[in-house]
Amino acid sequence: MAGKDVPVSPLAPTSYPDAPAIEGVRFATAEAGIRYKGRRDVFMALMAPGTEVAGVFTTSKCPGAPVEWCREALLGGMARALVVNSGNANAFTGLKGREAVALTAKIAAKAAGCKPGEVFISSTGVIGEPLDATKFEGVLDACARSAKDGPWLDAARAIMTTDTYPKVAVRKVKLGGVDVNLVGIAKGAGMIAPDMATMLSYVFTDAPIAAPALQFLLSQGVKGSFNAITVDSDTSTSDTLLAFATQAAAKHGAPRIESAGDRRLTAFKAAFSSLLLELSHMVVRDGEGARKFVGITVEGAVSNTSAKRVALSIANSPLVKTAIAGEDANWGRVVMAVGKAGEPAERDKLDIYFGDIRVATAGARDPAYSEAATTRYMQGQDLAIRVAMGLGKGRATVWTCDLTKAYVEINGDYRS
Amino acid sequence: MAGKDVPVSPLAPTSYPDAPAIEGVRFATAEAGIRYKGRRDVFMALMAPGTEVAGVFTTSKCPGAPVEWCREALLGGMARALVVNSGNANAFTGLKGREAVALTAKIAAKAAGCKPGEVFISSTGVIGEPLDATKFEGVLDACARSAKDGPWLDAARAIMTTDTYPKVAVRKVKLGGVDVNLVGIAKGAGMIAPDMATMLSYVFTDAPIAAPALQFLLSQGVKGSFNAITVDSDTSTSDTLLAFATQAAAKHGAPRIESAGDRRLTAFKAAFSSLLLELSHMVVRDGEGARKFVGITVEGAVSNTSAKRVALSIANSPLVKTAIAGEDANWGRVVMAVGKAGEPAERDKLDIYFGDIRVATAGARDPAYSEAATTRYMQGQDLAIRVAMGLGKGRATVWTCDLTKAYVEINGDYRS
Repeated sequence: MAGKDVPVSPLAPTSYPDAPAIEGVRFATAEAGIRYKGRRDVFMALMAPGTEVAGVFTTSKCPGAPVEWCREALLGGMARALVVNSGNANAFTGLKGREAVALTAKIAAKAAGCKPGEVFISSTGVIGEPLDATKFEGVLDACARSAKDGPWLDAARAIMTTDTYPKVAVRKVKLGGVDVNLVGIAKGAGMIAPDMATMLSYVFTDAPIAAPALQFLLSQGVKGSFNAITVDSDTSTSDTLLAFATQAAAKHGAPRIESAGDRRLTAFKAAFSSLLLELSHMVVRDGEGARKFVGITVEGAVSNTSAKRVALSIANSPLVKTAIAGEDANWGRVVMAVGKAGEPAERDKLDIYFGDIRVATAGARDPAYSEAATTRYMQGQDLAIRVAMGLGKGRATVWTCDLTKAYVEINGDYRS
Repeated sequence: MAGKDVPVSPLAPTSYPDAPAIEGVRFATAEAGIRYKGRRDVFMALMAPGTEVAGVFTTSKCPGAPVEWCREALLGGMARALVVNSGNANAFTGLKGREAVALTAKIAAKAAGCKPGEVFISSTGVIGEPLDATKFEGVLDACARSAKDGPWLDAARAIMTTDTYPKVAVRKVKLGGVDVNLVGIAKGAGMIAPDMATMLSYVFTDAPIAAPALQFLLSQGVKGSFNAITVDSDTSTSDTLLAFATQAAAKHGAPRIESAGDRRLTAFKAAFSSLLLELSHMVVRDGEGARKFVGITVEGAVSNTSAKRVALSIANSPLVKTAIAGEDANWGRVVMAVGKAGEPAERDKLDIYFGDIRVATAGARDPAYSEAATTRYMQGQDLAIRVAMGLGKGRATVWTCDLTKAYVEINGDYRS
């Protein structure tokens, strides 16, 4: 939160891409004083008429009011404005919460010159505090008047809460021989677990893609990215990932895509998925207190679903995560986490690798295992743990970070 | 582990019960030098002929070799010896592990004058290291020769690993008008989660109860005790809880009980369950780095099973646990944990209590909520969180501790 003196994650990117303007998207940031003074806590994006939208949301049974609003608005398939505030999640705020989100939409719609049902809203921050949406009066009008097509880093900064760095990813790809652009921003550092992470992310593209096709790409794309990351196994009430396609590239000859099965979409699909993966990794690399980025691959499971469950059991184990923080090649805890996952496993068929080092094979320590070599490996920042189950062809990779004292410190007094 | 300078948990008991001898049970502790020198790391108990036994074990798919041995031995229903070592879990040790446990049983059987199948074995400590069972040669002989009927605190101390205090509980109860005694010991502090916790526990009684009836009592008794606690959501490969009934009280007139439905068992059953509860709470109170003991009750769920899942989702949430460590009445995180549990929940029917203070009602902050009063409550050592779901009659209570920097410290270099 603002006011905290948390150092930037050592896993932060060392440079940012030059994020291009997306034709049909303008945006602005502002200070609405939602929780703290002197901090840009509102991001408003305005999309050209005809912009189509897709979204995926938290699976929480107690979602925030903005999530319920977006689910409803998504049925229309069209978007003209996005309003994101940090400082207050407007979650568990009852009837007042629903009124606050409706008022926000009304104010934004007036500023953007659209219908409230074309406004998408996200709120992130403290849960259970009423959000005073009247603070958006004037502020969103000013945003609409001053909106520009950059710089995207400002947008990424305005949606941060416990993040230590802004998250922006960029792709350029051909669609029917014509260049189209994608820019994505994200925020998230804690309360991160599938499905989804405490995590807000917005992807903007000028590609002329119809909402149903975009929704298919998004729903497929999150499986191996945002739904395959975990910082602390905690799932937010506010997770939101929206994709906006302004269709503007049609003017330059890009073909309108109606179906996700359209072959002309192949390159775009790959770019879109890799952008989601990059953004999701940025979230893990900013995991609260994180010092290590860890990919966990489980292969040879009875199914892909089973592999993912085992991988998440390892990724969410506090004992595995503290061992990684301690640079301790404690593969016994990996065995423990495999064993507790509740998935088919045969101890005597398990192989476990830290990087390329096979530490355990066939239910026992690898005879050739060198603790010194493994310890050296554990001192790295980017680690890979691989478990071969020896049962079938199921495979999954998930990403997580270590569990450090800094995580406890950050979360022991988040509200103070 | 030995050699660590971890202070005794502030939640430790201030005194220990005077644990009586259990007729038909003698025991000794010894130094076998399993991992560290100069530390009593072996506990051996000898039971009189005719002793019947019941047990429950880890649900891990990768159990340690001693767990597999005990499961097999339990089929016979009779016990003459128990050998417990700390320092090495003999888990994920492959064929060598099975050979080590068989050799341990052979050495113990010779020392005790019984069959190997009447020997029960537990090992706790590091996973994946071969256990050299030849170290038990001579040691178990000496134990058998020197075994006495007390003091129980020595037994409880010999099975400790990261525990900061020994765990002993005692009950005396009438069975058919005759006094019978129960003494239980336990160890466990981390890798604690249902079902079971990294947790070894042994209950000894002189009551003349048949193995099937004892097994029923044990399986029922763990549901609300050892299977309702969690320190870190991690389930050990070695969890073992055994109950031994020497039958000795029959000599004094206590009736032999064949069936768990026998009405004469009512008082014993209550005493047995409350002893299991006490031991399980002792484990949580020694949770690695714990500063707070927290009972979490969920009521009004659609079923008892659903209530327990929601309660465990709260109890295992790193964000809830760090908030408790920070004495922060962050009930928004409780909402989050309810929402992520995957169980039926209606946000707008939820009531949440911290102690007697209702902090949230009907999907929003309680209008009468006082942050100051709640913060004062959070400064206590023993906390109760209650969630009323408003959906049905399902109810469950689980117990956990807070997540502190000390947990990370203890587990970041456990093996070093």
